[in-house]
Amino acid sequence: MKISEFQDLMKELYFHQDSERKVKGTFIWLVEEVGELANLLKGSNEFELDKISDEMADIVAWVCSLANLLDIDLEKALINKYPNKCSKCNSNPCFCSTII
Amino acid sequence: MKISEFQDLMKELYFHQDSERKVKGTFIWLVEEVGELANLLKGSNEFELDKISDEMADIVAWVCSLANLLDIDLEKALINKYPNKCSKCNSNPCFCSTII
Repeated sequence: MKISEFQDLMKELYFHQDSERKVKGTFIWLVEEVGELANLLKGSNEFELDKISDEMADIVAWVCSLANLLDIDLEKALINKYPNKCSKCNSNPCFCSTII
Repeated sequence: MKISEFQDLMKELYFHQDSERKVKGTFIWLVEEVGELANLLKGSNEFELDKISDEMADIVAWVCSLANLLDIDLEKALINKYPNKCSKCNSNPCFCSTII
């Protein structure tokens, strides 16, 4: 599935609600999903990959909702920021020294 | 561009660094990007769409890095969570009542 197709699906499913919630309200929902992912990653238990997959999907979905509200083409944004090389060191693979 | 192609590109560019940083270290970088997006959305100034686009791209990029570390197929995760309908109310468009 193309990134643009997924963004379009999010528009089809949620734009009527996103529009009511507006940008800042929608951002808060994105942050909630990041918190839910944190909850699954913290501690020393084995990772629950099914739940983590769902939370990752939710994070991308809310980014798409925000992009739809701001009329941003997320696929274009990704290609523009990551044109087959690192956006900071211009290399592929990245050779930036700031790993940790 | 397919979601899986973008995830593969992130692996090509950053997996050697993500592997050193590990899951929790990589999650912190994701959170930093969410904070940078917050910084661009707060206040009453007009939205700087170019900068916001870059931050959205960074958030998706770090989600891909995390997915690569956990061997999660993000495209599959998205299709599984959003199979052309809302995952909560099973409708398209979504009819969940929790908008705000």
